[in-house]
Amino acid sequence: MTVDLRSDTVTKPTPGMREAMATAEVGDDVYGEDPTVTALETEVAALLGKEAALFVPSGSMGNQIALQLLVSPGEELLADSDAHIVSHEVGAAAAIGGISTRTWPTRGGHLDVGVVEEFIRTGVGYHTVNTAAIAVENTHNRGGGTALPLYKLEKLRTVADERGLKLHLDGARLWHAHVKDGVPLARYGTLFDTVSVCLSKGLGAPVGSLVVADAEGIERARVLRKRMGGGMRQAGILAAAGRYALTHHLARLKDDHARAHRLAAALEPFGVTDLSRVQTNIILLRIPRIADFAAAAADKGVMVSVMSKDQGRLLTHLDVDDDGLDHAIKVLTDLLR
Amino acid sequence: MTVDLRSDTVTKPTPGMREAMATAEVGDDVYGEDPTVTALETEVAALLGKEAALFVPSGSMGNQIALQLLVSPGEELLADSDAHIVSHEVGAAAAIGGISTRTWPTRGGHLDVGVVEEFIRTGVGYHTVNTAAIAVENTHNRGGGTALPLYKLEKLRTVADERGLKLHLDGARLWHAHVKDGVPLARYGTLFDTVSVCLSKGLGAPVGSLVVADAEGIERARVLRKRMGGGMRQAGILAAAGRYALTHHLARLKDDHARAHRLAAALEPFGVTDLSRVQTNIILLRIPRIADFAAAAADKGVMVSVMSKDQGRLLTHLDVDDDGLDHAIKVLTDLLR
Amino acid sequence: MTVDLRSDTVTKPTPGMREAMATAEVGDDVYGEDPTVTALETEVAALLGKEAALFVPSGSMGNQIALQLLVSPGEELLADSDAHIVSHEVGAAAAIGGISTRTWPTRGGHLDVGVVEEFIRTGVGYHTVNTAAIAVENTHNRGGGTALPLYKLEKLRTVADERGLKLHLDGARLWHAHVKDGVPLARYGTLFDTVSVCLSKGLGAPVGSLVVADAEGIERARVLRKRMGGGMRQAGILAAAGRYALTHHLARLKDDHARAHRLAAALEPFGVTDLSRVQTNIILLRIPRIADFAAAAADKGVMVSVMSKDQGRLLTHLDVDDDGLDHAIKVLTDLLR
Amino acid sequence: MTVDLRSDTVTKPTPGMREAMATAEVGDDVYGEDPTVTALETEVAALLGKEAALFVPSGSMGNQIALQLLVSPGEELLADSDAHIVSHEVGAAAAIGGISTRTWPTRGGHLDVGVVEEFIRTGVGYHTVNTAAIAVENTHNRGGGTALPLYKLEKLRTVADERGLKLHLDGARLWHAHVKDGVPLARYGTLFDTVSVCLSKGLGAPVGSLVVADAEGIERARVLRKRMGGGMRQAGILAAAGRYALTHHLARLKDDHARAHRLAAALEPFGVTDLSRVQTNIILLRIPRIADFAAAAADKGVMVSVMSKDQGRLLTHLDVDDDGLDHAIKVLTDLLR
Repeated sequence: MTVDLRSDTVTKPTPGMREAMATAEVGDDVYGEDPTVTALETEVAALLGKEAALFVPSGSMGNQIALQLLVSPGEELLADSDAHIVSHEVGAAAAIGGISTRTWPTRGGHLDVGVVEEFIRTGVGYHTVNTAAIAVENTHNRGGGTALPLYKLEKLRTVADERGLKLHLDGARLWHAHVKDGVPLARYGTLFDTVSVCLSKGLGAPVGSLVVADAEGIERARVLRKRMGGGMRQAGILAAAGRYALTHHLARLKDDHARAHRLAAALEPFGVTDLSRVQTNIILLRIPRIADFAAAAADKGVMVSVMSKDQGRLLTHLDVDDDGLDHAIKVLTDLLR
Repeated sequence: MTVDLRSDTVTKPTPGMREAMATAEVGDDVYGEDPTVTALETEVAALLGKEAALFVPSGSMGNQIALQLLVSPGEELLADSDAHIVSHEVGAAAAIGGISTRTWPTRGGHLDVGVVEEFIRTGVGYHTVNTAAIAVENTHNRGGGTALPLYKLEKLRTVADERGLKLHLDGARLWHAHVKDGVPLARYGTLFDTVSVCLSKGLGAPVGSLVVADAEGIERARVLRKRMGGGMRQAGILAAAGRYALTHHLARLKDDHARAHRLAAALEPFGVTDLSRVQTNIILLRIPRIADFAAAAADKGVMVSVMSKDQGRLLTHLDVDDDGLDHAIKVLTDLLR
Repeated sequence: MTVDLRSDTVTKPTPGMREAMATAEVGDDVYGEDPTVTALETEVAALLGKEAALFVPSGSMGNQIALQLLVSPGEELLADSDAHIVSHEVGAAAAIGGISTRTWPTRGGHLDVGVVEEFIRTGVGYHTVNTAAIAVENTHNRGGGTALPLYKLEKLRTVADERGLKLHLDGARLWHAHVKDGVPLARYGTLFDTVSVCLSKGLGAPVGSLVVADAEGIERARVLRKRMGGGMRQAGILAAAGRYALTHHLARLKDDHARAHRLAAALEPFGVTDLSRVQTNIILLRIPRIADFAAAAADKGVMVSVMSKDQGRLLTHLDVDDDGLDHAIKVLTDLLR
Repeated sequence: MTVDLRSDTVTKPTPGMREAMATAEVGDDVYGEDPTVTALETEVAALLGKEAALFVPSGSMGNQIALQLLVSPGEELLADSDAHIVSHEVGAAAAIGGISTRTWPTRGGHLDVGVVEEFIRTGVGYHTVNTAAIAVENTHNRGGGTALPLYKLEKLRTVADERGLKLHLDGARLWHAHVKDGVPLARYGTLFDTVSVCLSKGLGAPVGSLVVADAEGIERARVLRKRMGGGMRQAGILAAAGRYALTHHLARLKDDHARAHRLAAALEPFGVTDLSRVQTNIILLRIPRIADFAAAAADKGVMVSVMSKDQGRLLTHLDVDDDGLDHAIKVLTDLLR
């Protein structure tokens, strides 16, 4: 038995999802003629309470298109220094968008609105870079799946409005925050100018993300998507998997959260993780020479993500059921003993 | 009956192709673990006689990654002014790669190596932009599906070597040149440093292109693909369609060429196209107020691409059979009368 | 005796100009407090009939700031393929501005408005790059100092207005066109959205150019200048030289033109240049193995610019008087014999 | 009497400096023929113990050229969030160099090498941005003129070498650190791959900075300077002022430091500044509604820099003598009472 806990991106399409792809009605989406893509875009825009959405091949492209909508070359984006858009999209914001980033470290991805306020600089002469937008990641990947409380996001919106700034939400795992906190997805949508959401992580679709915004923004986003090479033709094949995932795999995320909690509870006595910080489907590990540990676990069929010399990560997802989890708990606790 | 002659990108996956997608073995390709993607990359690299290949979501991304491999920001790429990479990829070479383009008009996409030689500038002081690479499109889309003769490409390679330049081949429709001229695909591959090929035009796959190069280039290309947002997870779904297309839809391109010839022969008497210039599956039209003509044709189920006030285009492809062609000939000639 | 005909950029400040620099009133121009810079900007704006001007350290920076004002990243600029902004500013338009260029060759820098019209593409779907502006160089450096006739510029303005495009004039040597054709400088200014003019070529100042535009454009240009590193402090030292040059060295350009004509007339019998194409202060040479020729001339104190294997250039300027010209004519004709 | 304490950039050239400019030997520096520029570059390279130097029109251009030498587009530069290159060069690193920045706040610009180490990420897969270089500012402008102790810089060099990173020193006010700590300038030079130094701040020249590096780097820097529009012709006029400043105004910086200390000592009793943190020529102020305070001071001839609602700055420099300082102390303390 192999249990892959490295990431929730490793899930494989289910039979039902494959069936949906195999029978999807398609057309040329570069001409706007793929009915399945259009239906998915309409549904996701509605879910998030925004005017429009655009299907893109990856979460990174969704984020980067959104940032280009909000920040002009030479302007500044504020984000925490572990944000995916700053640290894990290969410098795209600067390299493609010419976007300057100023960042600060956080504890577990927690947003401190006061720190954000101090970082904002607008209208300060010819030489100071102008802050144009702030990006938030929810749940926060490197922070360990942290869900940001709604009141903080509301406070951030207030600050942004006072200072004339835009807000982007990297919602690759927004589904998890929604399921954990019970905040309607549309509530998140109304607080942010742009949101990206991903179908191929917790939801288990093979490929695809969406960026949502107002209608004018999405019209501009179509040009940016083409420029970045994200124009696909009969993309309805992929969109069909996404629609299936939204219908069948959203509510079940609570099971992933419960399993992550159970796994973390089993590991905590060994001092390698902090159960109280496990909010959704991500568990951060701190184990000296974790690469050796991961290799030993892999030998017994349990795959662990290595993030640095002594840091690692476990994620629960669609392809980890209770049996798999039991196996993982056994293997990992045996090794830790 | 609807016959869509606007582009060969409008084809829909066949039942066999859908079956291939539905049963594809997949994995997380960002981790390099999707066996179907890897198999496709290996096969296409071999076809083109290059060391390695990379699967990307679109032909534009394939081209732009290749250009970024060959040309540094602030250096110059030479290409004809109607080249897809210059005119129809929304300025990506400059906007994303910082690549300067100097171009010249051609007649029907024909390559004049002498003109290219005059445009090259290398090693001329601190202020003259340095020519780093030349891009060729074969077959040439805006030129009307023109296949460039092998001897010209060989001559271009000689010039490039003499001047220390790199060569990129935009091979979105290279399959058509190969089928028309009988030149082995690997012969093209050996003449160029990078080649892009597309699965979703003549070959009829729903989504996907590949960029091929040497192994070191493709390793760098993986980073560039991630930066541009082209990293996809279980992309084997799409790659399976591509593999199916290579097996089943390559040789049959000769039928598309024959049908394009038959259609052009029917239209030429009306003075709207030049049969002698129809080499593959593209027919250029010159009809005053062609938008009106296209609207009238669409009313009768025949869709024509409008390119400017008096220019249009017809393409034959997988979804146009003999009956469809007969219908299109009847509708178009009736309207021209 | 040394006569340097390589370029009109080699002139050294005259005693009067040095005196103007030595006594210039200055302040911190980044704070907008240098009275000499401000006076120069006001005067040049008025000369060109525009609302405002900005002093910059080089002609290239002036051009590039203007292009960034007119063309957004990913949009297209049209220019002839020998234009200084395309060929001799080290790819800055693409590398810094993300500006895509489509070009065509001209004969001697002559503008063919019909060709320009055919190159324009606007509003053509999501993938075609959008033409945003056209750049013209007057006089045209690589074209041999060609002055473009006013009626062509007027026709270009009409075309630009019809198609919603902007126009930039690279006027590094606009002074020469003005002196040759007698067209008021302000007439040029009204035809273009942005103009760059240079103080350190024909006018003989050591350093400095200006970009002129409407007031809103120049306000944005201040930010772009700072970003490009062109913010200088007590720049009044340089501006004083520029003001002196405008007062004392503009009208005298007719002498440079006359001397260029005399020099070309002496060389034409040897078949190395075409007198009828010498309009201002530049003479193009075509001499096989011109590097050898230039070395031999340099030995006798006459410096010639080598542009390629068989192309060269001579320029008359402030530091070439009649004696110098006589010497150059003698040396060069002796060598050609 | 007017005493301008807003910045040390406001100084005006002295009679001796004007004389040096008026009599400077010059040539065309784009051709490398200006003897005064070349002499200055040679001298500054030697001072910093590096192979070569390049004269540029501003400190921002010097910094940005250096960053482009060390960091490729899409790679990452680490710096504190108040660094001039991140916050006050209008986003040039991202907009022009495509350079991604990850930053952290510091207390007064103090460098915490441990924090830097935690920020470094190299060789972590295809999606994590690769850290290529670290930038240090010494003295630190926003930090209040803080001089970084040599042992910290040495430790940083060790870390950089271990991790394969490059180091840039923004030395706009490196002269002040050198004068305060007695560290030879060449010692700084050997610790960093690139250094920028400025002639127009403490040293009192009107215009100009230099970037120093190894010979190969400076050769590449010549191309970058031209691309950014920093190629100037008879720049020896400016370089002469720089050479004069190095000879006559370097040692005297200790007087500016002493005066800043005296001024801060007079202000500290009012609780608006912290004397113990005044190390060189910069005094940070914290005064509620400082804009009103600055306006009142200006009415009495003392100019104060306003940085935010309640933050301001005073700088001593060449144009503030003891009488001026006495006047400033009187005016400011009267107002604070």
